[in-house]
Amino acid sequence: MVDIRVILVNPKFEGNVGAVARAMANFGFDELWMVGPCEIGDDARRRAKHAQHIIDGAICVQSLEEAMVGCALVAGTTGIVTSGEKHYVRIPVAARDFAERSTGLDGKLGLVFGREDLGLFQEELMACDALITIPTAPEYPVLNLSHAVSTVLYELHLIDAPLQPPTPATGVEKEQLFRFFSDLLDGIDYQDHRRKRTEIMFRRLMGRAVPTRYEFFTMVGIISEAAKRLRDQRS
Amino acid sequence: MVDIRVILVNPKFEGNVGAVARAMANFGFDELWMVGPCEIGDDARRRAKHAQHIIDGAICVQSLEEAMVGCALVAGTTGIVTSGEKHYVRIPVAARDFAERSTGLDGKLGLVFGREDLGLFQEELMACDALITIPTAPEYPVLNLSHAVSTVLYELHLIDAPLQPPTPATGVEKEQLFRFFSDLLDGIDYQDHRRKRTEIMFRRLMGRAVPTRYEFFTMVGIISEAAKRLRDQRS
Repeated sequence: MVDIRVILVNPKFEGNVGAVARAMANFGFDELWMVGPCEIGDDARRRAKHAQHIIDGAICVQSLEEAMVGCALVAGTTGIVTSGEKHYVRIPVAARDFAERSTGLDGKLGLVFGREDLGLFQEELMACDALITIPTAPEYPVLNLSHAVSTVLYELHLIDAPLQPPTPATGVEKEQLFRFFSDLLDGIDYQDHRRKRTEIMFRRLMGRAVPTRYEFFTMVGIISEAAKRLRDQRS
Repeated sequence: MVDIRVILVNPKFEGNVGAVARAMANFGFDELWMVGPCEIGDDARRRAKHAQHIIDGAICVQSLEEAMVGCALVAGTTGIVTSGEKHYVRIPVAARDFAERSTGLDGKLGLVFGREDLGLFQEELMACDALITIPTAPEYPVLNLSHAVSTVLYELHLIDAPLQPPTPATGVEKEQLFRFFSDLLDGIDYQDHRRKRTEIMFRRLMGRAVPTRYEFFTMVGIISEAAKRLRDQRS
């Protein structure tokens, strides 16, 4: 698990701080630092839900410099993507790319999020080792603060804890299913000239669905039984 | 772009509805339906920021069935992942996998999000064609409603609009950089027995960083200049 410190610079609404804390807990992170935040009271705690311990444990400092102490790498976030590559300080990487590259990081990663209205200032961005952006619709690129935090943490969470997918079916199981499907076509006297195309369509359909073993067994059960009954009907 | 309808079932807090609308606009979607929502007033509009048109255009209906009319595929969302595969109705796919599989979808995709406290009921989940989950820390799997919507829409947005990465450097440019780096090692009389390892390390470092052409040119400029000056010093 990447060791993360979330750093909020001058958050203005305590409700957002609460929502940030909840998102941190949702994705398994708990170290929150704030640079000159608004007053943190009941609304923040209410919005934090089961993550009030993160609010209570948050460290408040006076400058971004102080908040960066102890971080091996500090990444700022920005909604503004410069197209000209030479404005180097403003070239961000997408959150997903950043998360993928951060796996080898040794030490604490500081993630800096700016003000709700003005984001991070130029000198704050320049103090960061890297910049992260979240791809959005160009018409409205400014995310709510807690949504921005949530999205970046979601990406970092996925690096270490991908959803365990249900066991996929093996080739043997698949061929069994396709054979029974073919039997089923026999059973319904499927037209010969459409047969090949339909079999391919079924394979592709199953291919796109990436079924689990359980799903394949279920399908095999249904189709083989149907094929068997159709065969029995004739004899 | 996948054609999306966001369907909120019995949302209880209008602030959440506003935050959902904003997230929809952030990721380029605008069709919002609600089944028996709370009263939608100023707080929702305030939280929606520049997405008030989505609140104003939202369609309210009395049942999930009505909200599903016109959708080619309906996916429900759940924070509860069943480990036993046989509870079929509760086996979700991760939001990312779902988004990747949805690219070929022809027609409207309905995304159903449940109540802030109770989520979607069993019969509502059974009415869906697919289930989506967002991987979280097991200790606190319940996301804020607008964060859940935001995360799923983020994944669907990325399918169609990946961040245009800055032009990566070509092989020729890379080899040029590594040659100048080698010149630089000459220039500083680098120890022979460490040379090979250091060159490999530099290659790996650059490989992990995936630099852009601009970054490579900049590095080439710096390193070649340094190597040249070191060479000139001797003659």
